[in-house]
Amino acid sequence: MVRVNMGNVVWEMADVPKEYERLGGRGLTSTFVAREVNPLCHPLGANNKLVIAPGILTGTTAPCTVRISVGAKSPLTGGIKESNCSGIAGQKLARLGLAAVVLEGKPKTENLHVIHISKEGVTIHCMDELKGKGNYEVAAALKKKYGNHVGVVSIGPAGEMLMSAATIAMTDQDGLPVRQAARGGMGAVMGSKGVKAIVIDDTGAPRTVSAASGEAFKKTVKGFATAIAQRPRVKEGLAKYGTARLIAFANEVNALPTRNFSSGQFEGVGRISGEALADIIDARGGKRGHACYPGCVVRCSNVYMDKEGKYLTAALEYETIGMLGSNCGIDDLDIIATLDHLCDDYGLDTIELGGSIGVAMEAGVLSFSDGSRAIELLHEIGKGTPLGRILGNGVAITGKVFGVTRVPAIKRQGMPAWDPRTAMATGLTVMTSPQGADHTAGRVPGIREFDFFKPGTTAPLSLGMQLRVCVMDTVGLCMFADGTPESTEWLVKLLSAFYNQEVSSDDLVELGKRIFETERNFNLAAGISRVEDRLPEFMTMEPLPPTKSLFTVTQDEIDETFSSLKYQKIKLSETEGEHLI
Amino acid sequence: MVRVNMGNVVWEMADVPKEYERLGGRGLTSTFVAREVNPLCHPLGANNKLVIAPGILTGTTAPCTVRISVGAKSPLTGGIKESNCSGIAGQKLARLGLAAVVLEGKPKTENLHVIHISKEGVTIHCMDELKGKGNYEVAAALKKKYGNHVGVVSIGPAGEMLMSAATIAMTDQDGLPVRQAARGGMGAVMGSKGVKAIVIDDTGAPRTVSAASGEAFKKTVKGFATAIAQRPRVKEGLAKYGTARLIAFANEVNALPTRNFSSGQFEGVGRISGEALADIIDARGGKRGHACYPGCVVRCSNVYMDKEGKYLTAALEYETIGMLGSNCGIDDLDIIATLDHLCDDYGLDTIELGGSIGVAMEAGVLSFSDGSRAIELLHEIGKGTPLGRILGNGVAITGKVFGVTRVPAIKRQGMPAWDPRTAMATGLTVMTSPQGADHTAGRVPGIREFDFFKPGTTAPLSLGMQLRVCVMDTVGLCMFADGTPESTEWLVKLLSAFYNQEVSSDDLVELGKRIFETERNFNLAAGISRVEDRLPEFMTMEPLPPTKSLFTVTQDEIDETFSSLKYQKIKLSETEGEHLI
Repeated sequence: MVRVNMGNVVWEMADVPKEYERLGGRGLTSTFVAREVNPLCHPLGANNKLVIAPGILTGTTAPCTVRISVGAKSPLTGGIKESNCSGIAGQKLARLGLAAVVLEGKPKTENLHVIHISKEGVTIHCMDELKGKGNYEVAAALKKKYGNHVGVVSIGPAGEMLMSAATIAMTDQDGLPVRQAARGGMGAVMGSKGVKAIVIDDTGAPRTVSAASGEAFKKTVKGFATAIAQRPRVKEGLAKYGTARLIAFANEVNALPTRNFSSGQFEGVGRISGEALADIIDARGGKRGHACYPGCVVRCSNVYMDKEGKYLTAALEYETIGMLGSNCGIDDLDIIATLDHLCDDYGLDTIELGGSIGVAMEAGVLSFSDGSRAIELLHEIGKGTPLGRILGNGVAITGKVFGVTRVPAIKRQGMPAWDPRTAMATGLTVMTSPQGADHTAGRVPGIREFDFFKPGTTAPLSLGMQLRVCVMDTVGLCMFADGTPESTEWLVKLLSAFYNQEVSSDDLVELGKRIFETERNFNLAAGISRVEDRLPEFMTMEPLPPTKSLFTVTQDEIDETFSSLKYQKIKLSETEGEHLI
Repeated sequence: MVRVNMGNVVWEMADVPKEYERLGGRGLTSTFVAREVNPLCHPLGANNKLVIAPGILTGTTAPCTVRISVGAKSPLTGGIKESNCSGIAGQKLARLGLAAVVLEGKPKTENLHVIHISKEGVTIHCMDELKGKGNYEVAAALKKKYGNHVGVVSIGPAGEMLMSAATIAMTDQDGLPVRQAARGGMGAVMGSKGVKAIVIDDTGAPRTVSAASGEAFKKTVKGFATAIAQRPRVKEGLAKYGTARLIAFANEVNALPTRNFSSGQFEGVGRISGEALADIIDARGGKRGHACYPGCVVRCSNVYMDKEGKYLTAALEYETIGMLGSNCGIDDLDIIATLDHLCDDYGLDTIELGGSIGVAMEAGVLSFSDGSRAIELLHEIGKGTPLGRILGNGVAITGKVFGVTRVPAIKRQGMPAWDPRTAMATGLTVMTSPQGADHTAGRVPGIREFDFFKPGTTAPLSLGMQLRVCVMDTVGLCMFADGTPESTEWLVKLLSAFYNQEVSSDDLVELGKRIFETERNFNLAAGISRVEDRLPEFMTMEPLPPTKSLFTVTQDEIDETFSSLKYQKIKLSETEGEHLI
């Protein structure tokens, strides 16, 4: 692993300590942060450390193993944070044989640096000319300088200005900085280290990370890839409409955040659904079924063109449309795509920003549905005006500054686009995850076998999924590779072949528990107790219109499940996936 | 007690429940909040309650028993809050026989109300014409309407705009709204109830609250008053220079916050000291040795005139001068007095604002020492601009929004003007008080008998003083009546005579412990654990120039003391009071 101390602007190549062996991704970043970062340190100070680590299988030929995790103490939540994304950086780092890149210390100057990592080692360049530049310009400039083949990991102005909603952008296979480790303000931590970008050049590195048992691995890879590609959810859903296909579904079941979580259904849903998105993309010559990294079998990404048929943004996704769209009362995909583009460029989390703007709308700073004013506000964030800084610091801060009581945040992180009053199991994940309000920590799709309204069912399901996701995020496997009853078996086979040593599904559960507990313990030491595993008060007081749904899992069930870690094993079934919540 | 439900704009006169018997002030407000307010409620929502309660002896003839407590869940800290002040409202409420006024519920309209309380009962008036008005104008208007004799309890624009640094102002004996329940955003809670002011008219009420054993009480009152008035600290210190006399001392011992707590000494100290203040007051025909309520024997207040000899502000105090002066690098008493006046008028906590502006200076929003810009910023708060809202929400929010790492706040409350790296025992109070960073929760002056650098000394001293203050705040006794070895004996005698039943000093300690634990338990249930009993990280990393002092009490000592509640009995000695820290 590479450790870069930005206090003295020096780096060293260090062995991976024993404690991090057989870890990657979230497992590595969270273990690292728990071991090396004082839970009471200031997230933007000298004692926080930013860890960037590809998953265990990232860089291998295994399908959908592309994720790269970024970890640190979060300036947004004040707790431990892991935020992962795809793009090409993870694979390149893994191919270079690097388990992690660590940024530590506090710069003594105001200079902005670019770190170049290749087979030859590390060089650190002062590049003040990139100050204030957006991620698109940064990626283009660095590709021009270092070659089109490099992976770029960068921050926009939001990260430089240390805003808690700042992301870290990573380039995709088109070289665009549209894959973002978005949640929890990791971009601000990178900014606090005086690092604008990390360039990863894997020239001369092996083309793939190889497994200990090559043949068995190859065979498993092939079988798993076929299984994923043939699933109707992938073939008919993700590859055609991307994640946006869930907009209509979420609306139908009353879970689509609308006007700052004041309704679960949006009258403009027809204009922002996956189908509407597909029509626009097709009409303007955009792309659907786009892969975010070379060779992906799921291909959930897309490329969105503007009215003139010019590139506007890539991967307009469910969460972005839900949070910057319906949650702000905005039903115009061109506006939502523009907001998405600005978020990517300034380096801002679209979920957090959708929440911030929704709360600002609730406060009367602008009206619900006022898309042009929302675009202006994004530019204010880019400029760092006081109003821009408020919004760029996220939902909870925006609520606090404007004295709003309806603030959709848990552990100071803005809630994703699944209203927990309907999506109760996912809601429970959002409530209880050590990561703060985060659906990717364990979104629980509807499963026919389980009646979510039966007492004792929902909490163990949420926990089961959270432990599962801890493992996926450690392996580097995309969540869309999951979702069949056989997923766990495939993963067990892959890891066994990778290590050439038997790994059982029980081992995986133990790994998941270890990571989950490591994160919870860090939070406890940082002052975040289980008392914060709660919905915002307004959601407990307001049944969600129009169906008046209300979160009904009892506090006893939650407490019992999450103190004992008694989880429900999840056998995901394919077809029911989207029909129940 | 009067309960006013602002949801339906109705009131009722209710018996004081048994649990609150023999409680007043902080003991009553904290017990009430712990019993009736959900620790997880939104501080500005329907489920928070604002309780205003005079101390047990407030309204009697006992010297310095004038304090009135305001309690609620704090929008600033998220924990329990009690904020007390003097003025004439407490005595008037007590004379009307009211143990407390409670505001509850959430208004259904945007209307702003004035509550009038008299012997005849309660009337609630919609007075939207007072919207946006400062406390001075409100007090004047309400005295004009209801008579000069009434006590006015009001909020300024900051409270209306629900800012977390908003105060509740109470009129003094001159009818000016300069006595403020300042800390913890109680003004925002009052604002969230749609109440602009409470007018207290004690016409027809007995002139004093009488004691059960009248003769004994009278005798004790006389003795205690004489003892207080004769103390050199009062006679030569407080009555001559007010609390501002401590400026030079704090500077001398390296404890005066300077430029956002980056030094303990201020080169401009000579221009802001108590002596300099006295000179200006005398030269311009202001007042020193002014009493904040009729008959006070300490008379620490003052009246400050501008260059033209016209009234500018009243009670320019140590904390205000330290925080809005040296902490902002400002050495001009006219500017500090103007800032104080604006804080009183807009309804803002001078300690919190001095911290906010200091942090904004650190962030480069304005320069240290730029007094004219600081005045402009106060007006921005009054207008509710985005920048004004940031500052008006306090130190922690300002630090967060501007990404500052040197943020002098504990439990999200701005620190008072005693740098804990020198003033260690007071610092410990500021760290461990359930009230957040608050010196009035137990400022520990230097005491010759105790060597603060001896392990095992400081934490028990801080705790001892905190328990003592819990009692003082419950009785309604001003802290300046304390400070002699005999204070406790006088208090025991007073209470015994008041109840005509023996009260022992052990009873008082038990009362203090009960209140302290009640508050800590509320905080724990609100998610504020002992992990937050810490200095801001930067203070642990930076020895305080120029003497390079550093907080040295060990975490073990703190943990041991505050988990076992093993306190040190304090025998305050007079002369040493200000010579050691």
